[in-house]
Formats: sequence, structure tokens, C-alpha cells
Amino acid sequence: MHNFVFHNPTKILFGRDTVESIGPETRAWGERALLVYGQRSLKQHGLHDRITDSLRRAGVQWVEHGGVRSNPLLSHVRAGIERARAHGATVIVAAGGGSVIDTAKAIAAGTPAAHDVWKLFTGKKSLKSALPVVTVLTLAASGSEMNSGMVLTNDGSREKFGYGHRLLHPKTSILDPRTTFTVPPSYTVFGAVDAISHVIEFYLTASDPDTPVQDRLMEGLIENCMAACERCLCDPCDYNGRANLMWAATLALNGLTGAGLGRVGFPMHLIEHSLSGLYDTPHGAGLAVILPGWLRARLPHSPKRIAGLGRRVFGLTQQDDFQAAEATVKCFQSWLRQVRAPLTLTDLSIPANDIPRIADHTRSLARIWRLTDLSPERVAAVLAHCLAAD
Amino acid sequence: MHNFVFHNPTKILFGRDTVESIGPETRAWGERALLVYGQRSLKQHGLHDRITDSLRRAGVQWVEHGGVRSNPLLSHVRAGIERARAHGATVIVAAGGGSVIDTAKAIAAGTPAAHDVWKLFTGKKSLKSALPVVTVLTLAASGSEMNSGMVLTNDGSREKFGYGHRLLHPKTSILDPRTTFTVPPSYTVFGAVDAISHVIEFYLTASDPDTPVQDRLMEGLIENCMAACERCLCDPCDYNGRANLMWAATLALNGLTGAGLGRVGFPMHLIEHSLSGLYDTPHGAGLAVILPGWLRARLPHSPKRIAGLGRRVFGLTQQDDFQAAEATVKCFQSWLRQVRAPLTLTDLSIPANDIPRIADHTRSLARIWRLTDLSPERVAAVLAHCLAAD
Repeated sequence: MHNFVFHNPTKILFGRDTVESIGPETRAWGERALLVYGQRSLKQHGLHDRITDSLRRAGVQWVEHGGVRSNPLLSHVRAGIERARAHGATVIVAAGGGSVIDTAKAIAAGTPAAHDVWKLFTGKKSLKSALPVVTVLTLAASGSEMNSGMVLTNDGSREKFGYGHRLLHPKTSILDPRTTFTVPPSYTVFGAVDAISHVIEFYLTASDPDTPVQDRLMEGLIENCMAACERCLCDPCDYNGRANLMWAATLALNGLTGAGLGRVGFPMHLIEHSLSGLYDTPHGAGLAVILPGWLRARLPHSPKRIAGLGRRVFGLTQQDDFQAAEATVKCFQSWLRQVRAPLTLTDLSIPANDIPRIADHTRSLARIWRLTDLSPERVAAVLAHCLAAD
Repeated sequence: MHNFVFHNPTKILFGRDTVESIGPETRAWGERALLVYGQRSLKQHGLHDRITDSLRRAGVQWVEHGGVRSNPLLSHVRAGIERARAHGATVIVAAGGGSVIDTAKAIAAGTPAAHDVWKLFTGKKSLKSALPVVTVLTLAASGSEMNSGMVLTNDGSREKFGYGHRLLHPKTSILDPRTTFTVPPSYTVFGAVDAISHVIEFYLTASDPDTPVQDRLMEGLIENCMAACERCLCDPCDYNGRANLMWAATLALNGLTGAGLGRVGFPMHLIEHSLSGLYDTPHGAGLAVILPGWLRARLPHSPKRIAGLGRRVFGLTQQDDFQAAEATVKCFQSWLRQVRAPLTLTDLSIPANDIPRIADHTRSLARIWRLTDLSPERVAAVLAHCLAAD
């Protein structure tokens, strides 16, 4: 096991009727807030009223910054920073999924800074202080509600970059599974695939193979994300299905899975960030296409590890590692087909002859992420596996 | 899944050469410290010098309060509180296992209080403030390094009571697996059994049976505690064996396993606290004897749950729940025999005709722990299963 630091101070309030705690949880950090949220759904489903009622009762004065879209944009963050400053906000409230929470984190980081927030993402500046962030999560997917990372797209350059800092851990995140009852099947699946990908990236890029504590945790989370996703598709209002998916997705990227694995990579996310940066593909949809392709590309290098994953998660019994690894990839693809995820680049309306362009686009991101082994040629090889499904 | 709050702000520094961080980690909370430790081993193995060198370099002025023994005593805590006050300590440093850390927590709680610290344990007072605690862990067992609980024995009344409060989370815990290379086989086993028992108590007393996220986590931790313990017995200096045991034991009681399970009980710990309170039995030794006995007593009530545990942890294939549950108990007992744990009350030199006395002793503790279903009669029934091993 490698050395690690694990420090996750985010307080999780999980369960029914926890949304009504957002007022006091916000007020603990300040009485002037910026409320960040997405497009229509928050207002459609009554959640906006519940949140603002709670803020009002707690004596919080807020201004709103709605309109966050998936693959959130730098320009919208910059506008949020202006609004937070104009209001004198001392706390940022996020109500939404990963895009909304990431936007809130970026506003929290940018508001007190004397420089443009994008400089954090390009490595030209480091974070010195940030406003506190509290969240109400409405989508099981990104894990942003309990980690210190954020991802943003620069609408000028179409670069989709990530940044993380311990000051960006939300102070409190409220997870009420019932807020996700109205998530449509497609986004339920995209969220599950996002969480599964977070785990598999770590599982297969860890530099230390002797980590059975983390392995059992990761296998359990993958199995649970899949099973819970199926329950939610079968009955969108299955409370425990939604709860399991929500909690598993949070645990999938809260620092526990990677603690002790040494240096890990995010190759699938890197490639996907180019897809969504270039084509505005929903993040989980892009990952669904890349996951089996990347597993296939890894297969010759890590047959034993992929086989072990398949034996634990799918109960595969093939003795031969290569055969078991092949079967593992097929199991993942079968499951993706079963839950009606997109399976090929064509399903995402991305033409095969765009592969060189996508691969080239990953170049600068791979440098920033220090994934020096992920050359454009290797990216192209992964994407070539994404042209057809079994 | 039940509603829950999860909030664990303890920072973990895990791995080789992390002990040398104790100075700066302590200094971040104050420059006057009380250093709490146990009997001989800290000084024998050079760890005391490493810790005090680091404190000195960081500019920390400390006084020492050694001599903590297992099943730590209230009288020794009271003496530590006097010493901390006399020194004007603003931070408590614990270097040891769960007994040392629990002692440090009790001193941290008692030093600023205007009342005797035991009143927290009997429910007559609640905690208002506590000094910060930082720890260097030297035994994989209790989980106290990453939770807010503590257990103390009143040497006057022989009561062994527990208390927990969020203010008692250690600020930083340093986990260097190499500090456990010198732990003898017996205490390595007792520690593993303690951690396993923490998980099994939750697993089998949870009021909600639909918690697969937590179940996979718990099954993985049990499997890992057993496997890592075997590695450590085979080679006491197997770094990854010690690391896996240490991290699994920490995760076994840091709040994650129980989050969402609803109300859980600690029946095995309750009975064991009477054994060690009355006979000064090592905690893990008492648990090793109680574990199969308690499983046997539970078997008629939870055959499905025990069977599920055995299928996951031991790969059992019996279709019939009752048969699989029986086999699960036998697997645990076989493993305990394999690692040379005590198996019966006789192995602990406790005579069979003391059972009524032990059962009666649990009465007040059961009331404080609100385990109202654990009558002395039921305790006696569990202990009757602990008279002979299969």
C-alpha cells in the first residue's frame, strides 16, 4: 500500500426531509448567500421553493444564479463571481448535480481571488482561499458533493479542465434520494456510469496491485451502482434504489477508493472531456461509450486485474485470466446495452473520421493531468474500439 | 436505508515515515502538550524518541503521562487531567493503541470541564468543549483513531462504560504500519477480532436489511481483517499485511459501516465489557470467545443474514439459509482456532458458574447503552454457548 493522506471533512446529511436543513447549514457559514442551480427542473419539482423557504426561515439573504448547464461553462462561472461580489456573498449554496456543484466551487474559489478563476485550471495560480460551499444534491453521479474537485469548460477554447483543492470540500452536502425520483432514465444511467467509471479508473490504473481493502470497497461500489441503477430504471421512485445509487456514487469519488493506491490516472475521463468539450456530449454518455473501448485497450496489459474484477463483480468462473478478462468486458457491455446506454461513437453522432481530431484535442489535457503515457496515438487506439459494440 | 449524518473530519496520515509528522501536526493545535502513552513498548522500540524528537523540532513543550494499560482506568485519566492542567496543556498527543487514545480523549474531555469526567460516561453531564487530540497509532484494533468514541473502566465500581461526542474526533491520526511490526501474535489476533466484531455487530443488528452498499463494504472489511491477520502471523514484518489490517480496522469503526443502517447495537461489546471489567480480560480475547457464541444465539433469529455473510466472506454455497448460517459460525470458529485465539470461557480462566454474575453485571450497562432487549437472561444464554467450542 502506498502512503496517503485522507482528510474529508464534508458533513453528509442523508435521507428523507434533509433538504429542509439547508437554511441552518447555510446560516452557519454566513447570512449572505449566492444560490446556484441549473435549468428548469429545480423550479418544476418544487425543490426551489423548499430550499428558499428554508433559507428565509434561517435568516439568510440570497441572490440567485441559475442556468448552469451540463458541462458547465467558464463564462457562467465568471458571471456568478460578479454576482457573488455584488451581493457581498459569504457562502455559496449549490442545488443540483455535479455541474451545479462544480460551478458553485469555481465561484467560491474565484470570488475572493484577485485573478481570473481559469488560471487555477491551467496551473498558473494556486488557491489561497475560498468561500464555503453547501450543497443540495439532485443527481447521483459526480461525487463532487463530497470531494474537493471541479471540472469546467472554457467556452472560448473548448478546453474542459479539472482542478482540486482541499479548501473546496463542501462544508455540508444534503443528500435526499427523493430529489432524484424525477431524474429521467437516461440521466440515471449516465450518472451510474460516471460513478462506475470513477471506480474503474482507479481500479485499473493503480500502481500498487496489493490493495485488497480498497479492492473490495471498489468492487462493492461497482456492483451496487449497477444494481441500484437497474432498480431505479424499474421503478424511479424506489427509495432504496435511489438511496443506494446516491450513496455509492458519493463514496465512489470521496477519496476512499484511491487512498493507498499510489498514483492513479483518469484516462477515460480525459478522453471523455474531449468528447464533451468538442461535441457537448453528456458526460456519462461519453463514458458509457469509452468504458468498454478502454477496457479492451487495457486488456492485453492487465488481464489478471480485469479478470479479478469480473470474478468479483459478475461472479465469472473462467480460470484463464485472459478469457475471464474478455468476459468481463462483455459483461460490462451487456449491462450498458441492458440499461440502454449509448454504445458507440455513432450512437453519439460522432463520425469515425473525427478520431484524429479528438485524439489531438486530448494532448494539452493529458499534459496538465500528467498522463504522459496517454499519447494521441493511444487515445485513437481506444476510440477505435468504440466504433462498434459486440 | 435509514437517514444518517456522516461527518468524520479526522485527517489520516498513512504510511512509512509518517510518525515524524507528529510535531507539526501537534504544533498546529498548540505549543503545550500532554503526551499520553502506555507501558514499556513505546520506549523499547525507539518510537518514543522519534515522537519526542519531532515534538521538540516543532517547538512543542510537553509533559508525559505514560502507564496507560489495556482496559484503561478512570483513576489514571483523572491523574492525566491534573497533569494537563498543571502544565497548561492545550493539546493532547496519544501514542499507542485504543486504550491510549481513549485515555487521551478522556483527558481532552475532562481537562476543560468543571465536573468529574466520569459524569460524561454515566450520562449525568454532556460535553461542552474538549482539547484537540492528535494520535500516533501503534495497534490495529479499536478504530478510536478515526472516531469520536472512548471506553473507560471505573476502577472503583469495575464498570466499563463508553461515551462518544463529535468534539472527540482526533484532529490528525498518524498510521505507520511499521509501528505494528513488533505487536506480538496474540495482540495482533485480538486486534483483528476487535475490528471484525465491530463490523459484525452492525451487520447483524441493523434494523434495515436493504443496505447493499454498506453490506459489501462490511463483508470486504471482515474478509480483509482475517486475511491480513493471517499475513501478519506468518510474517510480522509483512508491510502490506500490517497496512491492510491497520486500514481495515480503522474503516471498521469510523462511521461508514453504520451510516444508513438505522439503530444498531453493540451486544458483543456489552458482554465483553463485563468480562474485561470483572476479569481484566484483554478486550479482543473476550470478543473471540463471545463472537461464535453470540452468532449461535442469533442464528435462529437471523439465519438469512448470517448465511448471506458466510456466502460472501467464506464463499459458502449451501442453498439452505439455516445450513449456510450454521456453516458460517463454524467457519468463524475454525478461523479463530487457526489464529490461536481463545475459544471458550475456560480458555479465559472464567468458571462456568460465574455466568449469572457476568450476566447480572451487564444489567446497568445495557440500560445505559439502551440495549433493552439484552436482558441478563439473554446474556446468560449467549455465554452458555461460550462454554465449549466445536
